[in-house]
Amino acid sequence: MPTPLIALDWGTTRARAFLVGEDGAVLGKRVADRGIQSVPSGGFPAAFAQIAGEFRQARPDAAVLLAGMVGSRNGWVEAPYVACPASPDEIAAAGLAVTLDDGTRATILPGLSCDEGAFDVMRGEETLIVGLGLTDGVACLPGTHSKWAEVKGGRITRFASFMTGEIYGLLREHSILSRLATEPVGDDAAEGARRGLAAAQRPGGLLNAAFHARSDVLGGRMQGGAVGPYLSALLVAQEIEGARALFGDLANLHLVADGVLAGSYGRALAAAGLDHGLTTPEDAFVAGVTRLARGLAA
Amino acid sequence: MPTPLIALDWGTTRARAFLVGEDGAVLGKRVADRGIQSVPSGGFPAAFAQIAGEFRQARPDAAVLLAGMVGSRNGWVEAPYVACPASPDEIAAAGLAVTLDDGTRATILPGLSCDEGAFDVMRGEETLIVGLGLTDGVACLPGTHSKWAEVKGGRITRFASFMTGEIYGLLREHSILSRLATEPVGDDAAEGARRGLAAAQRPGGLLNAAFHARSDVLGGRMQGGAVGPYLSALLVAQEIEGARALFGDLANLHLVADGVLAGSYGRALAAAGLDHGLTTPEDAFVAGVTRLARGLAA
Repeated sequence: MPTPLIALDWGTTRARAFLVGEDGAVLGKRVADRGIQSVPSGGFPAAFAQIAGEFRQARPDAAVLLAGMVGSRNGWVEAPYVACPASPDEIAAAGLAVTLDDGTRATILPGLSCDEGAFDVMRGEETLIVGLGLTDGVACLPGTHSKWAEVKGGRITRFASFMTGEIYGLLREHSILSRLATEPVGDDAAEGARRGLAAAQRPGGLLNAAFHARSDVLGGRMQGGAVGPYLSALLVAQEIEGARALFGDLANLHLVADGVLAGSYGRALAAAGLDHGLTTPEDAFVAGVTRLARGLAA
Repeated sequence: MPTPLIALDWGTTRARAFLVGEDGAVLGKRVADRGIQSVPSGGFPAAFAQIAGEFRQARPDAAVLLAGMVGSRNGWVEAPYVACPASPDEIAAAGLAVTLDDGTRATILPGLSCDEGAFDVMRGEETLIVGLGLTDGVACLPGTHSKWAEVKGGRITRFASFMTGEIYGLLREHSILSRLATEPVGDDAAEGARRGLAAAQRPGGLLNAAFHARSDVLGGRMQGGAVGPYLSALLVAQEIEGARALFGDLANLHLVADGVLAGSYGRALAAAGLDHGLTTPEDAFVAGVTRLARGLAA
């Protein structure tokens, strides 16, 4: 018999908490600046109560699932990675029990590891990927460290991380290009994106194309406001080409994004000739914890 | 009739000054922390006297050549870029005259621009490339912004810049990887370089391979001391692949480097199956100004 769920996507800097009804509807949500790096050792039960205590009071019968960095070495308790390929039931079965401050049991979901070609790990994204409900396909989760994952026969078979968001931030804010970059105005965003996608097709690669932001501005060929959009489009296009090289033709591709990232990845995927479905991270998370809770109950 | 030369490689943060005899031998050299960013408007004659005054006193008959960022918008006077393809005589002919504080004439050498595929510029490196004396070949000049240049029939036909050194610094010092990276000890440098060169061959590309430094350390597969060497080798190998895609088979390749960069680029070129000659930046600069001075006199 399904029960309501209290589910947290508990990351390094932030926690997102959801109260999910028996029918899968989101009854409440909260975002708190109570990432695991702000929680002292032994302070997790109290931090949980602070983040989601009102959900507990509203639905004391709810099962509690915690996903993300809360299961890392610096989190509540370290939940060992489950090695790919992994099914939703295998992920759920590896959940670790912890005890809330009122004695109730909660489950910390494990992350995944992948050792195909190169070693890689994720924590939290596995829940969103499960939430897509794919039988066969590829999921793209953009972010500071984007993740791409392959699903076959309902199992996550392998995945890869890309430092796209972080390298964008370094180039935009801390490199020689940051001195030339200004806030986009007028056509800057569209022009920068167009140039960045085109630059990704040239043969010199990322290290060469990034420098062109500088020479194009100094040469009067691009506005300073286009530098950020140029770098973003260039990096996203490079990520997509890397993922295509790793995962093949990317048929049945699903993008998990909203806001600015949904736009920039959507444009870059279209430029690469790739159709894709779009799901918001919140919808994917809620569907994922709902599915994994069934695995726990089984 | 050849005269002695006083030649400065005058960059943004530093100036290197050489006194070169009629026979091309270096009679004296100085390195000064008097890059153009430290020189106030109108202060260049005095800064020159401070850097190279003793050479002027020793050889008042010497011709004076200034190369590098001293010819940029923020330098002594802006010497417009010469468009590729450009011969040594065409570069020399575009030199701009300025006047030293004793009324003597000096020549500011121009940089080069290239508009093949993408717009690119250099200032200072053209002098080192000329110094290689190539008829047909490719020059690789590693650095914060590495330059690769193609020479055909004695003219620099096109070139490309790579942000290799700067992106290395950003990743090593300012990214999430910097928290894992330690100083190399024991086999760390060799192991990191080996892994980085191998990672550059994998299909996921730079954004993916950079992240593996993190997962490999967290997974206990690589020491923190290998992170820097891994990133360096990965980035250099990516630069070489980009240059090969731009410039073809890289037959008659010349590397202009010394110290650590001569080692890291030498290893990466060997791993890529590329033979190369090696010249130090100082030797290339001195030979370059000697050659360009002949063009001025002509």
